[in-house]
Amino acid sequence: MTYCVALRLDAGMIFASDSRTNAGVDHVSTFTKMRVFERKDDRVIVVLSSGNLAMTQGVVNLLDRHQHAAEGTRTIWNVESMYDAATLVGDALREMQRKDGPYLLQSNIDASANLIVGGQVRGEAMRLFHVYAQGNFIEATDETPYFQLGESKYGKPILDRVVSTATPQKEAAKCVLISFDSTMKSNISVGLPIDLLWLPRDSLRVGLQQRIREGDPYFTMLRSRWGGGLRRVFQELPDPDWLE
Amino acid sequence: MTYCVALRLDAGMIFASDSRTNAGVDHVSTFTKMRVFERKDDRVIVVLSSGNLAMTQGVVNLLDRHQHAAEGTRTIWNVESMYDAATLVGDALREMQRKDGPYLLQSNIDASANLIVGGQVRGEAMRLFHVYAQGNFIEATDETPYFQLGESKYGKPILDRVVSTATPQKEAAKCVLISFDSTMKSNISVGLPIDLLWLPRDSLRVGLQQRIREGDPYFTMLRSRWGGGLRRVFQELPDPDWLE
Repeated sequence: MTYCVALRLDAGMIFASDSRTNAGVDHVSTFTKMRVFERKDDRVIVVLSSGNLAMTQGVVNLLDRHQHAAEGTRTIWNVESMYDAATLVGDALREMQRKDGPYLLQSNIDASANLIVGGQVRGEAMRLFHVYAQGNFIEATDETPYFQLGESKYGKPILDRVVSTATPQKEAAKCVLISFDSTMKSNISVGLPIDLLWLPRDSLRVGLQQRIREGDPYFTMLRSRWGGGLRRVFQELPDPDWLE
Repeated sequence: MTYCVALRLDAGMIFASDSRTNAGVDHVSTFTKMRVFERKDDRVIVVLSSGNLAMTQGVVNLLDRHQHAAEGTRTIWNVESMYDAATLVGDALREMQRKDGPYLLQSNIDASANLIVGGQVRGEAMRLFHVYAQGNFIEATDETPYFQLGESKYGKPILDRVVSTATPQKEAAKCVLISFDSTMKSNISVGLPIDLLWLPRDSLRVGLQQRIREGDPYFTMLRSRWGGGLRRVFQELPDPDWLE
């Protein structure tokens, strides 16, 4: 399983992904699910992925291959908008589905994949897209400034309670990590390390890229104090007086 | 959608279910998902249900019909153990699947249903079962003293953090209601009223059966203070110092 989150805040964008993949419980590995395409002062495009790993790695390779494409070809390095970047990712996903889909189907293997594509291309505002398994996509808005992939339910309530576009980046990063804690606590197939990326608005370069591993002091403190705080709030709430 | 929870504590059992059903967003109704079979000083058996409403109502009707069955027939009123009660429910589900399943399949309608069966029959300890859509079932243990049905993920973390078999009933009821709050906040197809039932250990009679409706003072207080408490704990946690 996978858990990925991306937020489009007023101050910039935060991307986060876990890195546990499994093909059965006896085949668990660590693969990053975050891919960054950065050309400083021109564009930063981040792709997060969930689903069939061969499919999503194939998509990223197609995007990379396009770098060496014939002149005039639309690639992740020359698209003029994030909308075009999302279209490119959707097209790459469809290409992979055409190529490998029928073979996976023969073995009854799920070939589906979902991706998040976000970032900023010079001359345009930051934009965030969720590309569905069918290759079509939706864009985040001010009302819903975030997308999740994979095991999304456990970590959604805290995002809904805390995050809006006005949330400062430090607070949003804290919220994202708590969202990961809730998810990892309930689904052992989501695991460390967490890849976290901060893209400040209009900077057109990665502000921070960090890998949070087992024993990370800030994350460890956060997990412990969040759990303790929840139990304290729970204890302080009055019991029902109608139940003896 | 549905949300149901049942706990088997040292002190007794708590059952809770929402009552919103929908067949499409334009067909939303209120149906109880809790059915109680009580013969004082002999047995209390509670059935919670999720899934296809016609199926689960059919199961309950079969259990009731058995009341008028020929002498010697095993019914919910004469089974000598909760294990037999769970078998009976599983058999009723299979009977309904045989009868209606093929017709629903023709229209591509999901005929599946899951049920929780719990309670106490005189001469036996309290027991709790989860009957799967296939009619087979598992039993709750001291390590996992609760079962959920339906939209279970949003409300699971607080149960995992708080509930063990030693939890007093008032605290457990509070936890169950917070679990419902988290679920209803994230899934609008889970809704009030909540049916809540308390069965004290070895009492062989319902201790309390309560319907929690919109505006219920305790539940309203709980929702508001829990949300406020979560935000306070969140605010008190230090922000990451590595993100400027």
